[in-house]
Amino acid sequence: MSTATPVSRFPVPELKDLPEDIREKILAVQEKAGFVPNVFLALSHRPDEFRAFFAYHDALMLKEGGSLSKADREMIVAATSAKNGCLYCVVAHGALLRIYAKNPLVADQVAINHLKADITARQRAMLDFAIKVCLDSAEVGDADYEALRAHGFDDEDIWDIASITAFFGMSNRIANSVSMRPNAEFYLMGRVPR
Amino acid sequence: MSTATPVSRFPVPELKDLPEDIREKILAVQEKAGFVPNVFLALSHRPDEFRAFFAYHDALMLKEGGSLSKADREMIVAATSAKNGCLYCVVAHGALLRIYAKNPLVADQVAINHLKADITARQRAMLDFAIKVCLDSAEVGDADYEALRAHGFDDEDIWDIASITAFFGMSNRIANSVSMRPNAEFYLMGRVPR
Amino acid sequence: MSTATPVSRFPVPELKDLPEDIREKILAVQEKAGFVPNVFLALSHRPDEFRAFFAYHDALMLKEGGSLSKADREMIVAATSAKNGCLYCVVAHGALLRIYAKNPLVADQVAINHLKADITARQRAMLDFAIKVCLDSAEVGDADYEALRAHGFDDEDIWDIASITAFFGMSNRIANSVSMRPNAEFYLMGRVPR
Amino acid sequence: MSTATPVSRFPVPELKDLPEDIREKILAVQEKAGFVPNVFLALSHRPDEFRAFFAYHDALMLKEGGSLSKADREMIVAATSAKNGCLYCVVAHGALLRIYAKNPLVADQVAINHLKADITARQRAMLDFAIKVCLDSAEVGDADYEALRAHGFDDEDIWDIASITAFFGMSNRIANSVSMRPNAEFYLMGRVPR
Amino acid sequence: MSTATPVSRFPVPELKDLPEDIREKILAVQEKAGFVPNVFLALSHRPDEFRAFFAYHDALMLKEGGSLSKADREMIVAATSAKNGCLYCVVAHGALLRIYAKNPLVADQVAINHLKADITARQRAMLDFAIKVCLDSAEVGDADYEALRAHGFDDEDIWDIASITAFFGMSNRIANSVSMRPNAEFYLMGRVPR
Amino acid sequence: MSTATPVSRFPVPELKDLPEDIREKILAVQEKAGFVPNVFLALSHRPDEFRAFFAYHDALMLKEGGSLSKADREMIVAATSAKNGCLYCVVAHGALLRIYAKNPLVADQVAINHLKADITARQRAMLDFAIKVCLDSAEVGDADYEALRAHGFDDEDIWDIASITAFFGMSNRIANSVSMRPNAEFYLMGRVPR
Repeated sequence: MSTATPVSRFPVPELKDLPEDIREKILAVQEKAGFVPNVFLALSHRPDEFRAFFAYHDALMLKEGGSLSKADREMIVAATSAKNGCLYCVVAHGALLRIYAKNPLVADQVAINHLKADITARQRAMLDFAIKVCLDSAEVGDADYEALRAHGFDDEDIWDIASITAFFGMSNRIANSVSMRPNAEFYLMGRVPR
Repeated sequence: MSTATPVSRFPVPELKDLPEDIREKILAVQEKAGFVPNVFLALSHRPDEFRAFFAYHDALMLKEGGSLSKADREMIVAATSAKNGCLYCVVAHGALLRIYAKNPLVADQVAINHLKADITARQRAMLDFAIKVCLDSAEVGDADYEALRAHGFDDEDIWDIASITAFFGMSNRIANSVSMRPNAEFYLMGRVPR
Repeated sequence: MSTATPVSRFPVPELKDLPEDIREKILAVQEKAGFVPNVFLALSHRPDEFRAFFAYHDALMLKEGGSLSKADREMIVAATSAKNGCLYCVVAHGALLRIYAKNPLVADQVAINHLKADITARQRAMLDFAIKVCLDSAEVGDADYEALRAHGFDDEDIWDIASITAFFGMSNRIANSVSMRPNAEFYLMGRVPR
Repeated sequence: MSTATPVSRFPVPELKDLPEDIREKILAVQEKAGFVPNVFLALSHRPDEFRAFFAYHDALMLKEGGSLSKADREMIVAATSAKNGCLYCVVAHGALLRIYAKNPLVADQVAINHLKADITARQRAMLDFAIKVCLDSAEVGDADYEALRAHGFDDEDIWDIASITAFFGMSNRIANSVSMRPNAEFYLMGRVPR
Repeated sequence: MSTATPVSRFPVPELKDLPEDIREKILAVQEKAGFVPNVFLALSHRPDEFRAFFAYHDALMLKEGGSLSKADREMIVAATSAKNGCLYCVVAHGALLRIYAKNPLVADQVAINHLKADITARQRAMLDFAIKVCLDSAEVGDADYEALRAHGFDDEDIWDIASITAFFGMSNRIANSVSMRPNAEFYLMGRVPR
Repeated sequence: MSTATPVSRFPVPELKDLPEDIREKILAVQEKAGFVPNVFLALSHRPDEFRAFFAYHDALMLKEGGSLSKADREMIVAATSAKNGCLYCVVAHGALLRIYAKNPLVADQVAINHLKADITARQRAMLDFAIKVCLDSAEVGDADYEALRAHGFDDEDIWDIASITAFFGMSNRIANSVSMRPNAEFYLMGRVPR
């Protein structure tokens, strides 16, 4: 757990050797978070993939409008990444979930068993659908759309839930395959009341 | 199967109403393929996601260098998309596989059971790994890297196999969730010797 | 894919060395189809099993009466054989399905994901049941009978669906175990409009 | 459990109304066993299928030659039918296994967990393969053939193991689908030393 | 199967070397049953665990009150132990089930497929729940409680069903891990009418 | 998350109404931990089961001797309880693991994916075995014993690993079935360096 612990199985370029746009993005996140989440370092090994990954991430997670709160979006990530056994995403997005939800317990709850979590019926329906998209998307059909609409989600929200699940399913598979390591900082974030 | 068959559960914008860059990309693919694959139309509903999706796609599938041929890449997509029950991707990328491999049989073979397909031992190892990333990425580890290196893949190739699998795992989940429909043209492509 | 490609892991007798009835059946199918499907050659290695296999096959697939069309029967075979990963049966019976249904797309659709196929609600119920018999017959019960009756199937039809699924489940396991290879002719059959 | 208990969900013809060959076969088994196993009655509802079923059964189970004893064959049936949750076949063929093996315990053992059964290493390898054919035939390959050859099985024996498993996989699915009920007589057969 | 067959992978102490309370419990069961069930011998290797195991067992299985009969309790054990592939518990508790239920067939029936067993609708609901607790307890929720209440079970009964299932799930895992062998006497108990 | 949040679906007796020995055990744990873990309250509903449960727990978790450290034991609980989706046990025993291991990260790591955790090869082998006992104990055999012995575990250690896994498999099923809720105090325990 020293600073010598590798970020992943792959080499990480020196910041100075990175393309300008990537270096700036990394410096900006460091400025904001106080550290550089390892996903930025791991993916900087492939600049074009880095750019597309974060463009897609931002389109889904920073999107304005729709009825999904930031906490809802991170809740989808924490719950589905746990099903995929992705250490990086459960730890990193669990931290974000705690912060956005201002709830120190909910991230562990949805990662371990969302059916026992302190969430609303609407969030439960959202996670039921996300987990189905994660584990068995071939079976998704009309009944799933109906179940979500019954909780007030519209079709654009459903697209969002499905796409966030799908995007982080990609992220989970990459992180698992390259052994991407979560920064130690994430584990405690949002747990201690300020 | 008339032209009135919907592209997906979501509306498709008029070409004229699309942002310039997206319209141009769609016209370019139509020019090249003779028709517009439905994935372009379905995703044009969300321009930012469209751009990120195809940027990522192109970074992985049009990448120069590495030891994966274009046929190898499409073979990964066909085999893993079949595990995810994704009609769109098996049909569309099966077509591309037949064309790149100049082999009318191999796409059906790897989609149904890659262990019975007319492929090399190297391709078999590649698909064994891709299917593990697709179905059980949490279990990926050193032994998988060793198995691939034994067939001459280097670590950059392994990144490519994992990322292609992961990207299309995302694509499969989106396509399944929005009921994206493959164009009828794909089914016959590459089957009839010229 | 040359003519030297083996039919299966087991030797195939010379036509002249086969029992008269088996040779005649093989010559008849060759006359009709223009080639000898490999299942006839592979099973001719065991004449008694050959006779019983085709007697059972014909009793189920050539049966007069009942409400299952020939296309319906082949659709059951294509969809369930895909679940069993049987290259021979998906390719060979997919060809027959295309021909009987006069539909070049439906075989690939039901083999990849029957929930996204262009089939009727009645066919969907038929395949839902067949896939349950294929994958989890221990759970079949009254509710399954009711669901089929609601679509106009009577109990004799249900026997037919279950038995066709069961028979090809046997065929799938034999084909997978002996590596039975589909003839190259099947892949294109029924795909090109005449 | 009175004599009024139905044989299956389907009607059973009067003996006098059955075709001559089927009536004779039923009377012969009754003469030999002291009762008519319900599979004969249940399938008599479909004479052509009855004939093909028993022709196939006899070709596999009464076959001369090969290295599989009658007890070995019934052991395959008991072990794989348990995996399919088939009450009829586990009970009926468990009885035959006890009788042929002259062992009152082995049928329950292989049906519950063949890894804990009092069987030889050769029988264990035989059942390992049969269970793989039963549950995951798509994965059968060279390594399975090698494992069996290491225990002295030749390729004809492997065909036998695979085909017996496949045939009773069909039988299991039919029995489960029509709710075929084992005769009460089977449960105690071979359990009490004479 | 001689008397030399080991009770488990672990050594069994001499009766004279056991603590007084354990020796007395063993002698008492021998007095009552006519033999010492191997679970007593296997666990005597660990006296503290022996005491806790049987205290828990007796609290659940000998409990007064509630609506579960002794046969119901043993039925839960037989059905769920079969799902866990536990030879010891299916054989030993199947014997007890036959005796308490005065039914020579029901133990084999619920172990092979409880959906085809001669049991009441109430027992079917009880086993449906027990099997869910056994195989997928994370999914247990309100609907399961409702389904059981509809058959007249109260919440204390539900606790009993869940705890019996959970306790024998522990027993199954221990027995499987140490290869605990059922006494030959159990196999025939309760099968022959007196 | 107020103090009004129920401990489980079942009523909790007043402390004054509990049997003396149970009240004393509860007061002792409160004295030591600063709060009463809900498992003590939930099980106090059934005094005999309470006594047996904690006698078994203490025999396994407080056992002297053997090569498993207290951290090792809690690591087994955290990893296997996560496979069973047991919120109570992952949260409560994750806390104990962090404290015994003096490592704020390892509990989340083994609960999410033990293959990516910062643990020794010996601990990895221990968890591999525990997870097999948890998920598929029917398959445990000689090879598993050999694998553990290769890491220096003796047979008594193997009994311990198997029994701890089995005991908490019981605990997981009870907690899931009665919706036992982890105390809020556990989530943060052992995370903040002192």
